[in-house]
Amino acid sequence: MSRVWNFSAGPAALPLPVLERAQRELLDWNGSSASVMEQSHRGKRFIAMAQQVEANLRELMSIPDDYVVLFEQGGATQHFAQIPMNLAREGDSADYILTGHWSEKAASEAAPYVRVNVAASSKADSYLHMPPRETWKLDPSASYVHIASNETIHGVEFHQIPDVGNVPLVADMSSDILSGPIDVRRFGLIYAGAQKNIGPSGLVLMIIRRDLLERPTRPMAKIFRYAEQAANDSMLNTPNTWGWYLAGLTFEWLRDNGGLTAMAECNRQKAELLYATIDGSGGFYHNPIDPPVRSRMNVPFTLQDSRLDAAFLQESEAAGLMALKGHKALGGMRASLYNAVPPEAVQALVDFMRDFARRHS
Amino acid sequence: MSRVWNFSAGPAALPLPVLERAQRELLDWNGSSASVMEQSHRGKRFIAMAQQVEANLRELMSIPDDYVVLFEQGGATQHFAQIPMNLAREGDSADYILTGHWSEKAASEAAPYVRVNVAASSKADSYLHMPPRETWKLDPSASYVHIASNETIHGVEFHQIPDVGNVPLVADMSSDILSGPIDVRRFGLIYAGAQKNIGPSGLVLMIIRRDLLERPTRPMAKIFRYAEQAANDSMLNTPNTWGWYLAGLTFEWLRDNGGLTAMAECNRQKAELLYATIDGSGGFYHNPIDPPVRSRMNVPFTLQDSRLDAAFLQESEAAGLMALKGHKALGGMRASLYNAVPPEAVQALVDFMRDFARRHS
Repeated sequence: MSRVWNFSAGPAALPLPVLERAQRELLDWNGSSASVMEQSHRGKRFIAMAQQVEANLRELMSIPDDYVVLFEQGGATQHFAQIPMNLAREGDSADYILTGHWSEKAASEAAPYVRVNVAASSKADSYLHMPPRETWKLDPSASYVHIASNETIHGVEFHQIPDVGNVPLVADMSSDILSGPIDVRRFGLIYAGAQKNIGPSGLVLMIIRRDLLERPTRPMAKIFRYAEQAANDSMLNTPNTWGWYLAGLTFEWLRDNGGLTAMAECNRQKAELLYATIDGSGGFYHNPIDPPVRSRMNVPFTLQDSRLDAAFLQESEAAGLMALKGHKALGGMRASLYNAVPPEAVQALVDFMRDFARRHS
Repeated sequence: MSRVWNFSAGPAALPLPVLERAQRELLDWNGSSASVMEQSHRGKRFIAMAQQVEANLRELMSIPDDYVVLFEQGGATQHFAQIPMNLAREGDSADYILTGHWSEKAASEAAPYVRVNVAASSKADSYLHMPPRETWKLDPSASYVHIASNETIHGVEFHQIPDVGNVPLVADMSSDILSGPIDVRRFGLIYAGAQKNIGPSGLVLMIIRRDLLERPTRPMAKIFRYAEQAANDSMLNTPNTWGWYLAGLTFEWLRDNGGLTAMAECNRQKAELLYATIDGSGGFYHNPIDPPVRSRMNVPFTLQDSRLDAAFLQESEAAGLMALKGHKALGGMRASLYNAVPPEAVQALVDFMRDFARRHS
């Protein structure tokens, strides 16, 4: 069996030991003589696993007891809508900080449910910088402040958690959750699609300060209410059991590899190596993002001569470097360096990039 | 590796050849040298697979061209709400036929979005019969008529598609889809959680007559609009890629085993064998459902002496018969006989049941 180095933005690379274990256990999980996919989510075995997965995540992220953890469906996009449905009443407003494609999308999907106040935006600047905190026009009566902690397409990341006072901070962390330690207490709600740093697509992890579940809301089906999901341990209906299981394997892999502190250091080194290669290429490669807010997870870059794009993609694929094509909104290339992308992969990428530049300069 | 006979109501048994293929391909799918879970859903390989899966389903079910097929998330429960959000305007009404737990739940989750008219119900009768078609109080101006074609908990099933005139018939087929041929043209919308007859949980299959997508609706996020999902081939955001893939393997398995006609005959024989065993037990076992509407998929039964329940469960598990415990709403036992449960499994079950009855009579 051959494996490639996978730089996909998502669904993304999964840790090889996680995949190997899932493969071994696929037909006979946990002594049940059946697959984990064939287990009732109400059965003892599955419930015990689900509780352990949550306990392991709580330990990894030091999640305080007054936060609930949910394992939901629908992708982060569905929760762009469900968050205002749950945290705001009709007519309330919420502050959105626009720093790229995904925070923009979060605001537009929220608009049917809350008055969206764009408190800051770097759109006019093509999202190359972060709007400085002192320019944000926050409303102290907002239901919440929404940020995307890392922009998967535009490649900008909050390296410090912004202070937004007493209004709950809501963060879409789809593409940088678990990439390093964070102080959960600084947030009202954290959510993340699983398909970058957690597991397969079809699962959304949510961490919600418990008092926010008690907010008065609006008439809606039970299935959309986070309070109902919390009261039912994310099993108001059948959850994505395979995703939950895979997330659990990833959490164990993280724990066994030094936890989030070790992961942060590894991610810092990987990103530094790639940015140094881009910046040191004499202009052959280019990343336009303001250096202090460059993402450690998603590195978009262009070739000075875009006529070489096709050759770059073809040759990199032939060299076992998968999914380097940039998002269609920006063109060029993008390398995503999530937890499951090992340092060797980044070394192989920069070796290829230097060689490619030499051959085509 | 040992495997058990799995009678779980869902997540349920998957066909062994499907699991074996998923296991073989888990680390290296389709020549990509990466897992199917690690593929971008926008990549050529995944798109090609997704289209083939839909084509295979269309052939299996003879789905006419004026129906769209969607691969959604959230479980059938989320669509209890999303269906009225999409098919009715505020203030419109819809007719619900209550024949068990799930159609009742569908009506209650719909209530925030449509005026629910209970056009017929067998609740007063503990759902042991079907309300006869001639007693249904249908409203010709209803947005749609909703049924659950098979009740997973109560064990009643529509064996004929009811005629509801020109109002679109909407059917939750979660627990009997693909169990035999149906005439899709008789329906406006068919939906089914995957975790019984399709694949793992976290995927919902929908088949919608295209004209219904053009109905005027109400303000809501794009992610909830079926028309948007249809326009984006179910990829408005990242779909459950693993579920989609597994569903595809199941559809191929169905095709290679004679398609839905062969499946229907096999399911008929399995159900007949189990019901004959129950009815022929001299009262030791009992299924209370009106015989003409007994479900072929979910067979609830009780032991005359409920003090033997614990021994029945313990001994059956020891005999390699998994997940026979009944739903807590009804107690007793339940055997689910989905497509992936082979005749040998049902034979093993009835052999055990006869032996158990002999030993405990």
